[in-house]
Amino acid sequence: MAFQTFDSPRADPAEIRKRIAALRATFGAHGVDGVIVPHEDAYNSEYLPPSEERLAWITGFTGSAGRAIVLKDKALLATDGRYTLQAETQVPDDVFTIVSTEEAARAWLTENLAGVTLGFDPSLHARDGLKRLDDTVPTLTRTPLSPHPVDTVWTNRPAMVPGAVRAHPAALAGRTPAEKLASLREKMETDALLIAESDAVSWLLNWRGADVAHTPLVLSRAFVPKDGPVTVFVDPAKVPDELAAALDGVAVIEPEANYPDALTRLSEGLTVGADLNAASEAALLAIEKSGTLKGGADPSVALKAEKNEAEIAGMRAAHQRDGVAMVRFLAWFDAHAAGATEIDLVEALEGFRREAGARDISFDTISGAGPNGAIVHYRVDRESNRTIVAGDPVLVDSGGQYDDGTTDITRTMVAGAPTDEFRTAFTLVLKGHIALARQRFPEGASGAELDTLARFALWNAGLDYAHGTGHGVGAALAVHEGPAGISKRSRVPLKPGMVISNEPGVYPGPFGIRIENLVLVKGATVPPGGTKPMLAFETITLVPIDTRLVAPHLLSAAEIGWLDTYHARVHGALVGDLDAAGRAWLEERCRPLVG
Amino acid sequence: MAFQTFDSPRADPAEIRKRIAALRATFGAHGVDGVIVPHEDAYNSEYLPPSEERLAWITGFTGSAGRAIVLKDKALLATDGRYTLQAETQVPDDVFTIVSTEEAARAWLTENLAGVTLGFDPSLHARDGLKRLDDTVPTLTRTPLSPHPVDTVWTNRPAMVPGAVRAHPAALAGRTPAEKLASLREKMETDALLIAESDAVSWLLNWRGADVAHTPLVLSRAFVPKDGPVTVFVDPAKVPDELAAALDGVAVIEPEANYPDALTRLSEGLTVGADLNAASEAALLAIEKSGTLKGGADPSVALKAEKNEAEIAGMRAAHQRDGVAMVRFLAWFDAHAAGATEIDLVEALEGFRREAGARDISFDTISGAGPNGAIVHYRVDRESNRTIVAGDPVLVDSGGQYDDGTTDITRTMVAGAPTDEFRTAFTLVLKGHIALARQRFPEGASGAELDTLARFALWNAGLDYAHGTGHGVGAALAVHEGPAGISKRSRVPLKPGMVISNEPGVYPGPFGIRIENLVLVKGATVPPGGTKPMLAFETITLVPIDTRLVAPHLLSAAEIGWLDTYHARVHGALVGDLDAAGRAWLEERCRPLVG
Repeated sequence: MAFQTFDSPRADPAEIRKRIAALRATFGAHGVDGVIVPHEDAYNSEYLPPSEERLAWITGFTGSAGRAIVLKDKALLATDGRYTLQAETQVPDDVFTIVSTEEAARAWLTENLAGVTLGFDPSLHARDGLKRLDDTVPTLTRTPLSPHPVDTVWTNRPAMVPGAVRAHPAALAGRTPAEKLASLREKMETDALLIAESDAVSWLLNWRGADVAHTPLVLSRAFVPKDGPVTVFVDPAKVPDELAAALDGVAVIEPEANYPDALTRLSEGLTVGADLNAASEAALLAIEKSGTLKGGADPSVALKAEKNEAEIAGMRAAHQRDGVAMVRFLAWFDAHAAGATEIDLVEALEGFRREAGARDISFDTISGAGPNGAIVHYRVDRESNRTIVAGDPVLVDSGGQYDDGTTDITRTMVAGAPTDEFRTAFTLVLKGHIALARQRFPEGASGAELDTLARFALWNAGLDYAHGTGHGVGAALAVHEGPAGISKRSRVPLKPGMVISNEPGVYPGPFGIRIENLVLVKGATVPPGGTKPMLAFETITLVPIDTRLVAPHLLSAAEIGWLDTYHARVHGALVGDLDAAGRAWLEERCRPLVG
Repeated sequence: MAFQTFDSPRADPAEIRKRIAALRATFGAHGVDGVIVPHEDAYNSEYLPPSEERLAWITGFTGSAGRAIVLKDKALLATDGRYTLQAETQVPDDVFTIVSTEEAARAWLTENLAGVTLGFDPSLHARDGLKRLDDTVPTLTRTPLSPHPVDTVWTNRPAMVPGAVRAHPAALAGRTPAEKLASLREKMETDALLIAESDAVSWLLNWRGADVAHTPLVLSRAFVPKDGPVTVFVDPAKVPDELAAALDGVAVIEPEANYPDALTRLSEGLTVGADLNAASEAALLAIEKSGTLKGGADPSVALKAEKNEAEIAGMRAAHQRDGVAMVRFLAWFDAHAAGATEIDLVEALEGFRREAGARDISFDTISGAGPNGAIVHYRVDRESNRTIVAGDPVLVDSGGQYDDGTTDITRTMVAGAPTDEFRTAFTLVLKGHIALARQRFPEGASGAELDTLARFALWNAGLDYAHGTGHGVGAALAVHEGPAGISKRSRVPLKPGMVISNEPGVYPGPFGIRIENLVLVKGATVPPGGTKPMLAFETITLVPIDTRLVAPHLLSAAEIGWLDTYHARVHGALVGDLDAAGRAWLEERCRPLVG
C-alpha cells in the first residue's frame, strides 16, 4: 500500500449542511446553544486516526490545526495562516465564517458567544485552551458533554485500528527506560507527573507503534510517581507479551479504558504535575478529586527533545539515506518534471524513500506546482492535481520515517529556467535560511530570539511569511515535537541535542518558495575575544540547494561561503552512495556558486 | 544649581546595619517575619523624589530598579543585569544576598520565604508583581502594612517638595486635553479607566511639572469615566488657578490625599479598567469595594507613545539643538579629554546643553572612563571619579529635557588612539546599531521580534549585552516610557509615532561600549515586488558616530552606506548652527568612511 493516498478531501457542501443540521438537532436535548469541535483528539494529537477526524467531518477542513464553533444559526472555523487558502477551498462559507488569525477569532468569539451556553467534551480540551476561551468571553457558560455530540450523529464513522507495539532497539534509543526514568525523576518537582503526550510515553518506554499515520508513536499516557512503577495507560491488546514483560519493575500497564478515572486513585494525597496545554480537562478533574494539581511544562517532553548520542547518530544516519533518496528524486525531477503531475512527484519520491529504507513517510508529502506551491500546507489530491509545464516552480515538502530517525525537508525547484522575480524571492528566502544556519547564540536563548534572522532580508523587500520558522523534530518519532521551536511564540530555550527545522519561505501567489533543512543544536566554539558560552546549529539535512535558482549578486561573500561549504559537505557525504548518473548530477549541483 | 550632583551615594555599611536593625525591631509589633522594600513609590515611579528612596536608604543601592526583602536573620537585594556591578559596590554583602537575575531571585525566594509572613505596603506594589511573588512562593502569607515600616524608622527623611504645574503649550502638544480625551474614550473598553501613571496624566492634561528630578511630569493619577469630567488626583496647591480653570468641563481636581479612597465612590457600579502592572494594590482594592475591576493595558499609555505631528516636530527640533550641544561637547572632548575627569565631562556637556536651551538633563549623565564604562548604569561621584589618561575609552550616556522634546544619546569615545580589541568591539556594536536602524518590519511586529538584529554580530563573536536594546522615550516627558520597547520581553507592537532608543553595547570589563540614537517609527515605502505594509525607523538623533573607532573591514558595503548617509544628514542639519571651529570639527567627523 502506498504511504499516501490522493482521495479528494472535499466533502460535498450539501453533505456538510446535512451534518451541521444533525448536530444542531442535538442542542436542545443537551441544553446548549452550540458546541465547540476541536481538531485535537483525546490524545491531543496533531495527526489523527480517521475515527478522530471530527473537525474534518463537520466542516470539510482537513488541515492539522483548527477548531469549529457551531451555534444555532451561525458557525466559525478558526485556523492559522498556514491554512487560509485551504480552509477557504474546503469549507462552505455560507455555513462557516472562516478566520485564520487569533485576532479575527477573538473578534468573532466576543461578538457571538456573550451569554451563550456552549457544549464541550472535556476529554478533548486542554485546560489552558478552555481558560483562554473563558478569558475572551467571560459571560460564556461551558457545559461538559461526553461523548462529543459529533460522535452521536457521525454515520459511518471509521473504527479505531490499533497498531502493534514494537521495541525501539536499545542501540538506537541510547538509554533504557529505567535510565530515562531516573533522569526524569531528577527533573520532577512534584510527587508525581502525568505524561499526557503519547510521543513522550513512547520515548520513555522505548516503544514504537502504528496507531496514527506517519508517526510511529503508541497512543498512550503515563502516570509517573517519584518512586515505584510507572502506570502506562494503553490498550493491552496491542502490547506483545515480551514487551509487557520487559517493563517489569519499571512500569505496569493499565487498560486505557480506565483513563482518566484511574488517575483519581493514583493521585491520592499527591501533588501531581501536568502540562495544562496538553493534558485533557477530564484528566485534570480526575486528579483534582484526590490530589493537588500543579500545572507546568512536562519535563519528559524536554528530555525527549534533547537527543542523546545514539539518537543523534541515528538521526544523522537517517539523513544520510534520506539525502540519497532526495538526490535521486531531484535528478529525476530535472529529467522528467515537465509533463509530470504533482502526484507523479509524490509517487516518485516515495519510491526513492522506500528504496532508501524508509518505513513510512513522516507526513503527507506537499507537492505544489505553480499557485499550489503558495498553499503552505497543500496536500495534493486527484482533483487539485496539476500537470507541471516548462518553467513551473514546484515546492516539495516531505520527510521519511526510518527506524533510526525522522526527516523533514523542503526543496523548491523549477522545471526549466526561473524568472527574475522567482530568483529574487528564492535568494531572499535563502538569505534567511543561511542567516539562521550560521548564527551563534547564547545559552538560554529561545527560538523567539532567532526567528527574525530568517525574515529580515524578506522584510526589507516588503515580504514575509505567515508561519513559524522552525519546529522540533523527534528521533524516529513525531515530525513535529515540543517543547522548543523557532517562531515569535517559541520561548523555550534551545538546548544541545534538539533537532529543529529551519524553513523560511515566501508565497507571492503564482508560486511558493520554502527552503527547509533540519539543524542540530550544539555547543559552539567561542571565538578569541568572546566571553559568553554560545550554542550553534549544525545542519544535518544533506541535499543540494539549487544554485541555478539563486541571484548571486544578492548574496554576501559570507553567505556564498556558507552555501559552498554546505555543498562540499553534501557531496562528500553522498557521493559514495550513488550510481554513476547520480554522482554526475550531484557533482554538478554541488559546484561552488560563481558570484 | 547644577542639574546633577556628585555626592557619593555610598552609605556607610555600619549605618546600613543600624537601619536594618531598626527595621527588624518593628517586625514583632507588626506580627511579620520580614518586609519587602520596593524601589517604586506610590506613583510606580522610576525616578523618585528623595523622600521616596526607601530602597536606597535601607540597602545603600541607588539604581533605578530593584527590591529588597529583609527577614529576621537574612536579606535579599534583587536587581537586574544593568546594575550587577553597582549593587555589589554599594550594598554590604554581609547583610544582603545580592542577585541580578530573575532565576537567582526566584531561587532565593523559594528557599527563604516558604511559610513566612511578609509585610508589604499595598500603596507601593502593583498587583501583578504581588501575584508573581505569590506564584513563586505559594506558602507565603502577605500582611498589608501602611505606612511602610521603613518610613517609621527613617530618621532625617527628606520632605517631599512639590513642583509647580505649568502648561505644555498647545503648539507643542498638538492636541487639546478635550481632543485627547475623545481619542482615549474611543479606545476604552470599560465604563471607566484608572490612569495610574503620572506621565500619562501629564500628557492627557497638557501639564508639565517639577516633582521629580529630570522628568517634567506632575505626580498625579486620573479616573476617566466614559462621560463627564475626569477626576485628577493631585496636590491642589501646586496647580495655578488659570490651569485649574482651563480644565473646566474636562476635569475636576481631587486632592491627592483622597487617593485611593475616593476611587470607591467613583467606581460605584462601574467596570473600571486598570493596568495591573502599574496601579497600586491599594487603588485596586478601593475600586473593588464598589465596582468591577478589569485588568489590561492602559490605552492612554499607548496614545501618549504614538506622537502626533506637533510632538514629532518638537522632538526633531530638540534633537537639532541637542545635536549642536553634543557636537560642541565631542569637539571639546577631542581637545581636552586627556587629563580631565569624568565629572569634568559631565559639567562640560551640561554647559553645552544649557546653552542649547535645555531646561534640564533627562537623567543623571553616565560618564565612565575605562572600567567605569563597563558599569551599564554608572553614575559618577567624587569618590569614583576617574581622571582620563591618553588611550582611555570613555562612555557618555546622557540626554536633555527641552520644552519641545526629550533626548537620550550614548557615544563612546577614546582619548587618543583605540586598540584593535576596542575597534573590533566598537564595530560589532555598530553593526547591530545599523542593522536595527535600517530594518523594515511588518505592521504588528513588536520589539521582541527586532531585538536580535542588534545582537547577532556580537553573538557570532561570542559576545552579548545584559540589557534591552531600546526603550520608549516621551515627548518632553519621561526618558523611559511604555508601552513598547526593543528587548526579548517587549511584545507590544511598534506603532508609527513612537520614539524608541537603539542602544546595543558590549562591556568587556576594561571598558564599555554603547552606541545609542533615538529612532522614530514610521510607515515604510514598500519596494517593488513587496506585498506587505511595512514600518521602518528614522533616526532622529543627529550626532556623528566616531569613524576613527571603526574597523572598516568588518562592515559590509550596505553598512558603510548607512553610516555615510547618516553622516551626510548630520552634517547638513547641524553645520549652520555651529561656529567656525565647530564646523571644521563636524566636517572632519562627517567624512565618508574609507573602507
